Amino acid sequence: MPNLNEAEFIAALRSLPLHPGSRGLMDDAAVLEFGGETLVLTHDTMVEGMHFLPSQDMADVAWKLVATNLSDLAAKGAQPVGILLSHMLGEDDDRFVSGLAEVCQHYNVPLLGGDTVSGDGTRVLGCTAIGRATHVPVPARSGAQIGDHLYVTGRLGEAMLGFEALRDGTGADSTAYRRPLARMAEGETLAPLVTAMMDVSDGLLLDAFRMADASETSFAIDTAAIPVADDARRMDCLTWGDDYELLFTLPADAHPPIPATRIGSVEPKGFASLFVDGEPVTNPQGLGYRHEAP
Amino acid sequence: MPNLNEAEFIAALRSLPLHPGSRGLMDDAAVLEFGGETLVLTHDTMVEGMHFLPSQDMADVAWKLVATNLSDLAAKGAQPVGILLSHMLGEDDDRFVSGLAEVCQHYNVPLLGGDTVSGDGTRVLGCTAIGRATHVPVPARSGAQIGDHLYVTGRLGEAMLGFEALRDGTGADSTAYRRPLARMAEGETLAPLVTAMMDVSDGLLLDAFRMADASETSFAIDTAAIPVADDARRMDCLTWGDDYELLFTLPADAHPPIPATRIGSVEPKGFASLFVDGEPVTNPQGLGYRHEAP
Repeated sequence: MPNLNEAEFIAALRSLPLHPGSRGLMDDAAVLEFGGETLVLTHDTMVEGMHFLPSQDMADVAWKLVATNLSDLAAKGAQPVGILLSHMLGEDDDRFVSGLAEVCQHYNVPLLGGDTVSGDGTRVLGCTAIGRATHVPVPARSGAQIGDHLYVTGRLGEAMLGFEALRDGTGADSTAYRRPLARMAEGETLAPLVTAMMDVSDGLLLDAFRMADASETSFAIDTAAIPVADDARRMDCLTWGDDYELLFTLPADAHPPIPATRIGSVEPKGFASLFVDGEPVTNPQGLGYRHEAP
Repeated sequence: MPNLNEAEFIAALRSLPLHPGSRGLMDDAAVLEFGGETLVLTHDTMVEGMHFLPSQDMADVAWKLVATNLSDLAAKGAQPVGILLSHMLGEDDDRFVSGLAEVCQHYNVPLLGGDTVSGDGTRVLGCTAIGRATHVPVPARSGAQIGDHLYVTGRLGEAMLGFEALRDGTGADSTAYRRPLARMAEGETLAPLVTAMMDVSDGLLLDAFRMADASETSFAIDTAAIPVADDARRMDCLTWGDDYELLFTLPADAHPPIPATRIGSVEPKGFASLFVDGEPVTNPQGLGYRHEAP
């Protein structure tokens, strides 16, 4: 059994020498000056049974591994420079390489290197994405200002429906879960305008809670305003995650130059980080669906 | 069962869009221009039972994870800028953080970020190290020139003896295996002088074979000249790996400005990549000890 949970482990890491670009280990990516430009760095790891189904096509797994890392760059308005892979050899690596080729071509992102290891158990796959900031200061989670309006791109819950279709073999479209898209162009367009931005990976409400917390504000969210994939399961759609939409705040007098929906407002920090349809939420537990081993 | 072995997988990756800085996936690190400076990037992954003993102190595992990545930077003459961690939660993470603090302080390298995941099987830990080149062109494996002399730092086989002491509980010193040192200062001093350089991670003879191959030359090695930790087991010392010494070539009229031993010469590419005491070696199989699950 782990002797530290994730929050405790990350808290312990804060006792280390942290690079100022680590943003206190509270953002989607690290941001650092290098030469005369700004580097954006992120790493995501996917564990079989935890982040993907053992039965999934490895081409889809490769796509998702890269796209979710690029989504972190998108949330910083960064253009991808290249990726490093951490690959554990296993079944269907030819499919993995094929999916990798597709995602790299789609986003025009080249491979820089990485490491290949053997393993005899659960597969663990990692990706480090390197990006170049297109606008400084690079948007942070922590910049939301009182009075700002809160927006989200796209429609939430598509990944959840895709996952269920895949898991249950219904034949319904599972693309949103298998091959998420990173909103690179939208992130770049928004970066100079937003006060805060992040990608929605763990569920809209959980990620909004984190952004409100990081910004030392409260967010008031109107769930009826949020576009969802299934009206009958609105709360599931808002807590499931894996959608990789962009969540951002703009000053009240600004309007997003890309398709996005206003879903709430930024208020002074109250006793709760989030007010969901007027109901205070003080504990993030249960706000985000943690899809454990299926 | 994997359907591709490591060499086949890496060969398949070469069909992807590769960044020129990937150096054909044949070097210790990726090297790219960024903002008027040169970025050096590397990622290494360690698998429990494969790269460390399940019984090992996690503080030592953290040390080694970071030090081996820094060693790749050292081989490029790069100064560390920061690291990203890929961490799978597990037993003794407090010890892991403690070892991480020690290695980060020792090398004055800050944490930039990373990812933390849960897992229920074999632990897999990764590190991406980001460095700044101190000299361009950044040394490559592929630069050895006919007539150059081949050198290595330190004494080979120390890690092997350390591993055996640890595995067998003999009480003998196991530091060299548990807490390898990355030769940062030596790498930086050598970078402007060498024609080729790499770190010795998989065994001196195997790594020399790779450097000779990458340079399209043959290396003639005189094993009696190589400092080893145990004279009675010279070949074991030269094939075991994990020593993280620097292997490099210099023009015949140059002398290393740091302690190092001349162990051979660079010759025109013959039918064998390596001549070990005059004996040709055409196949790298068996040249490097692959320490599988103990």
